[in-house]
Amino acid sequence: MKKNQTLKCGYLGPKGTFSEIAVMKYFGENVFLIPLQSISDVFEMVQNKEVDFGVVPIENSVEGSVNITMDLLFEKSDIHVVGECVVPINHFLVSYGSLDLAEVKKLFSHQQAIGQCSKFIKNRLNNPDIIFTASTANACEMIKDVPESAAIGSENIINIYNLKVLARDIQDSKNNSTRFFIIANSERFTKIEGTAKNYKTSIICSPKHNEPGVLYNMLKAFKEKDINLTRIESRPTKKQLGEYSFYIDFEGFKEDKDVREALVKLEKMSSFFKILGSYPKWKERE
Amino acid sequence: MKKNQTLKCGYLGPKGTFSEIAVMKYFGENVFLIPLQSISDVFEMVQNKEVDFGVVPIENSVEGSVNITMDLLFEKSDIHVVGECVVPINHFLVSYGSLDLAEVKKLFSHQQAIGQCSKFIKNRLNNPDIIFTASTANACEMIKDVPESAAIGSENIINIYNLKVLARDIQDSKNNSTRFFIIANSERFTKIEGTAKNYKTSIICSPKHNEPGVLYNMLKAFKEKDINLTRIESRPTKKQLGEYSFYIDFEGFKEDKDVREALVKLEKMSSFFKILGSYPKWKERE
Repeated sequence: MKKNQTLKCGYLGPKGTFSEIAVMKYFGENVFLIPLQSISDVFEMVQNKEVDFGVVPIENSVEGSVNITMDLLFEKSDIHVVGECVVPINHFLVSYGSLDLAEVKKLFSHQQAIGQCSKFIKNRLNNPDIIFTASTANACEMIKDVPESAAIGSENIINIYNLKVLARDIQDSKNNSTRFFIIANSERFTKIEGTAKNYKTSIICSPKHNEPGVLYNMLKAFKEKDINLTRIESRPTKKQLGEYSFYIDFEGFKEDKDVREALVKLEKMSSFFKILGSYPKWKERE
Repeated sequence: MKKNQTLKCGYLGPKGTFSEIAVMKYFGENVFLIPLQSISDVFEMVQNKEVDFGVVPIENSVEGSVNITMDLLFEKSDIHVVGECVVPINHFLVSYGSLDLAEVKKLFSHQQAIGQCSKFIKNRLNNPDIIFTASTANACEMIKDVPESAAIGSENIINIYNLKVLARDIQDSKNNSTRFFIIANSERFTKIEGTAKNYKTSIICSPKHNEPGVLYNMLKAFKEKDINLTRIESRPTKKQLGEYSFYIDFEGFKEDKDVREALVKLEKMSSFFKILGSYPKWKERE
């Protein structure tokens, strides 16, 4: 990764999305923003080397995993996870004109945002029609032409679209944050600093046999080496109900001796096995 | 549960949804159908004893878990899982008039149905606007007044709404099926037949300490008793990113000696622990 070169980074646009906030938090000024139409487009642009990096949401502390990202990590080859970034999520209810909460008849937003504000919607609004949109920024564009409508979005969006705030911090959970993966079409760095504890590694594996204790045996490989799992999530294999792939994040670098030995064991038990990448743990810049 | 009495069963309506198919498969003729507006309404009607049973989707073989059902199982008290039912999912593209696939400008359906047909939408349609609806049946109602629109729904729906089929079996995976839970406000039966292997039990637990090997230790309690896990799924606790509750289904009845002993161990490791219920494994009627 050369210094002083402007890198291109694709993310779910348009301008003002939480994905854009993640890009700016992770890369600072040293990046050329490429807003894209879908998470799937971000993966394709990275795969085709049309951008240097992509930033995609992987999980939210309230809504859980982002399924489309998980499935694309499974399906796409030549995609490496090279970083992570955590963004606190604060949602605002906004509209183009003044509107009492009870007057909101149509509410536009991304499905995750609607899910994250479900208590506010139920308790404070007057049962509005809910229209799901591709992004929170899209929602702000769509309400322009719809009377008695409001959107849910980030603080960034208010400034971009010059919207009126009807209510702030409307998310159900005050500890709402989203974790993003930074993806690239090749490994972008080698381990240069600190101990294994400063790194995380992400893998996907599907157990070979669907028999009692199969997940237990897989986790044993980590336990034996005292490796700390930070996340484990299952997704259907799409072959048969009851067959799952496991997405596992753990502390450590993939070339550390202990990690390597655990992964060799795990791969032997798996019908599908993929190391997504090792990357530095996210730390807020001071 | 008295015989010869018509039971009321709530489910995600309107008529023609896959939830309705599940109700009819599980209860046969002996049930009074109560279509409701949301999965949340189904839980509330069951809790308030306004219906005897509720039928709610819990996981799909392609799209994975149904988050809203999982969260309500966590939040709501006095809800018992008393049965399961698996329904094969075949999706149809339908409209009110004749329309070439390339002419479909607006596509209406439930988010899970859209997800399950993503390859068909991408490869066979001409980049239509996608509008998410509360149910597949809702989608069929909404396209009435929209020119050049189509909906995705079940075979049942075609007959109810007298729609024209533009394409059949458009789901990406031919092994697409959805598992439903049958819920009630009290335990509805005691174990009467067969061995433990004919039953499943569902629980939710959040580990007390977020330390290395915590999930491993939880699974060890099952492994020691040779209990087969059929599903394990994590959901965020909504308190902090990286803290999860685990939803576990396994073979056995909750009052079996081995199961009881495993659950006692598990409860000791948990800050939150809930037995959702034991119920007979779903078998297709011959």
